[in-house]
Amino acid sequence: MITLQDCQAHDRADPLAPLRAQFDLPDGVIYLDGNSLGALPRATAERVQRTLRQEWGQDLIQSWNSAGWFAQPLATGDKIARLIGAGPNQVVAADTTSVNLYKALSAAIGLARAADPARRRIVSERSNFPTDLYIAEALCREHGMVLQLVHADELPQALDEQVAVLMLTHVHYRSGRMHDMAALNARAQALGILTVWDLAHSAGAVPVDLLGSGADFAVGCGYKYLNGGPGAPAFVWLNPRHHAQAWQPLAGWWGHARPFGFSPHYEPAPGIARFQCGTQPMLSLVALDAGVDTVLAAEALGGMAALRRKSLALTELFMQTAQDELAGHGVQIVTPQDPAARGSQVSLVLDADGYAVMQALIAHGVIGDYRAGDPEAPHPEDRMDLLRFGMTPLYLRHTDVWQAVQTLRQILDQGLWRDPRHARRHAVT
Amino acid sequence: MITLQDCQAHDRADPLAPLRAQFDLPDGVIYLDGNSLGALPRATAERVQRTLRQEWGQDLIQSWNSAGWFAQPLATGDKIARLIGAGPNQVVAADTTSVNLYKALSAAIGLARAADPARRRIVSERSNFPTDLYIAEALCREHGMVLQLVHADELPQALDEQVAVLMLTHVHYRSGRMHDMAALNARAQALGILTVWDLAHSAGAVPVDLLGSGADFAVGCGYKYLNGGPGAPAFVWLNPRHHAQAWQPLAGWWGHARPFGFSPHYEPAPGIARFQCGTQPMLSLVALDAGVDTVLAAEALGGMAALRRKSLALTELFMQTAQDELAGHGVQIVTPQDPAARGSQVSLVLDADGYAVMQALIAHGVIGDYRAGDPEAPHPEDRMDLLRFGMTPLYLRHTDVWQAVQTLRQILDQGLWRDPRHARRHAVT
Repeated sequence: MITLQDCQAHDRADPLAPLRAQFDLPDGVIYLDGNSLGALPRATAERVQRTLRQEWGQDLIQSWNSAGWFAQPLATGDKIARLIGAGPNQVVAADTTSVNLYKALSAAIGLARAADPARRRIVSERSNFPTDLYIAEALCREHGMVLQLVHADELPQALDEQVAVLMLTHVHYRSGRMHDMAALNARAQALGILTVWDLAHSAGAVPVDLLGSGADFAVGCGYKYLNGGPGAPAFVWLNPRHHAQAWQPLAGWWGHARPFGFSPHYEPAPGIARFQCGTQPMLSLVALDAGVDTVLAAEALGGMAALRRKSLALTELFMQTAQDELAGHGVQIVTPQDPAARGSQVSLVLDADGYAVMQALIAHGVIGDYRAGDPEAPHPEDRMDLLRFGMTPLYLRHTDVWQAVQTLRQILDQGLWRDPRHARRHAVT
Repeated sequence: MITLQDCQAHDRADPLAPLRAQFDLPDGVIYLDGNSLGALPRATAERVQRTLRQEWGQDLIQSWNSAGWFAQPLATGDKIARLIGAGPNQVVAADTTSVNLYKALSAAIGLARAADPARRRIVSERSNFPTDLYIAEALCREHGMVLQLVHADELPQALDEQVAVLMLTHVHYRSGRMHDMAALNARAQALGILTVWDLAHSAGAVPVDLLGSGADFAVGCGYKYLNGGPGAPAFVWLNPRHHAQAWQPLAGWWGHARPFGFSPHYEPAPGIARFQCGTQPMLSLVALDAGVDTVLAAEALGGMAALRRKSLALTELFMQTAQDELAGHGVQIVTPQDPAARGSQVSLVLDADGYAVMQALIAHGVIGDYRAGDPEAPHPEDRMDLLRFGMTPLYLRHTDVWQAVQTLRQILDQGLWRDPRHARRHAVT
């Protein structure tokens, strides 16, 4: 059995421990939902206030130049690039993940079908995050294509030379399972298939090597492990080998080669800038920039590799203590035990009603979340109702994880989840 | 000649004068650029801080429900609806104007061509704001359609039964000319053409009656006369007669009938909610909400009709004093003298270099902006280099307008614009 003292020793030895001071966490709360909404960095309030009071309030329209607002989407993009194995001038922070996926997938479809008009399939996972599937469904409708949805295990058979695009989320939002990006990119490339990766649960959480693994397109989320705040702008990347040819239909003025030339005809900007569309929400964008800085602060302490070591230690600790302490409650860990195949979260099922258990946990100061299963899914894993616990290595301690499992055990041992206040109403976020 | 004393008397008699106290304007500045970036409302900083420190920092993920984040795009949309002649549950505040135009124009094309596949033309103004033209160009490319660009005077001839959509900006961003929305909607409807209106320079600036005038679709900007802050989310409206049929391809999870059902297949939500796509930038969205409140504060003092009266008085005052005071400098007012045909700005050309004059004005505390002409435009008006002065009736006084023209006269009389510091570098925003 792992003891509190063991965890205290791990915390004392943790080289990343100082990074927690970057955050303003509420007292008495263990926050295991940074995979849904990252915590508030201490620097963010001041940064947003400066943009609001000085740059907007006092300097007004001039701040587009003087405060660097024009350049902010690409400047924040350059910072994110350092976390995902991309180079400068390859990432732009803008819009939402869904909108960026529309851009990336549109461009990928265009490139794939220019090379071979007979490729009419997009392959993805049936249990991919729904908005990704909806966007792909919409583009299939527009382009007369077919969206083929399979289980992860069936991907190898699904890929052939009739496939235009393989669209996957790198770390699965439910199970926390992580794809082997390099292997899938290699397989796709051998078949002439373009890859589009959703890094929503990867950026800032696990090492990603977009260039090294030969990916084609990627999008990701600003408000999860990047700590950008509620609804923070998302990001989009494309491999520079596609910069000159990639065209996307959200062809607004910010993606124009000369946005202030006011030409009536569109001419895409060189490079990633052509994946911009309209004017970005600057208060939310500077908050994202401050959030990304909290992850970049790890660079002096070992960077993403060090964050990954701690993340794996935390997920391992959670899984081990859950198996030890919750043995009598039918605990089943859905997240892979193999470190190479898991992201930075732990998902599990219990005999007890997961929704009520999560409500009880939240009432006892441990915040995770609940994801109902899809009763119509063919694969049993996708039908499971899950409790999700996100492990953000920037601000979580080993003792937090240990305490969270103790609280969960107490709720199960004492049946506290049966309190009617915790009964199911509406699943959120 | 209109005197300062006349203007002081107008300010004393102005029923809207108290509304200026809602804003935090910099000392010594006369801000005539609210048509590009509205000024900072005093209430905004506190509202954003509450969302940031309490809702995000303390309440974290729970704020999606407890702080109303989920409902915010529709709640702010309902407020905007009151300013543009729309009803509740018809407007959503989200994304950018360009992205919303993509949604609206996609839906309009879909409806128009479902009714008559032979309609292959979209008609707009050649000098429409470029991003509108770029989005239309992209959709024409996707749908095998043609974008026909004409001058406003040529619109009547351009409309016929081969046109699918008429897409116009209600108040022209350069000239400040305002279209007769009701007349154009009636003409379009008689020909089976759907209308898409861009209200970027109308919402909060002039009365708009979308329902009463029979418009089909509209989009607009949050950071101009709605004072939502830099890059504030935009909005989109569609006539409820289209709610059930309108489909748009940015079909993300926020537009799903059951976003938390996590179904793998898209099913559009009823009503305007289907025009949502992804998660919105909450810090910028609550700032927009606070900005819209500054316009709604006029409701108790006569509402948009009262704002319009003051706006016309201010533009009239500017035009009259400019003609009186700048007579020797070749002043030419481009904005229509006819009140029914002008928005809430005054645009003019001078013998002097407009760019340098605007830089000199800004250096002397009068902020307007400069819009270079399109040298390739066939219509002379579109080739003109313009000085633009936006007249926001919420926070401008008659004395401000009078003083602005006096400063302009001083710069021209004394040739201050010839100072090399004011020479042309790069035109902005």
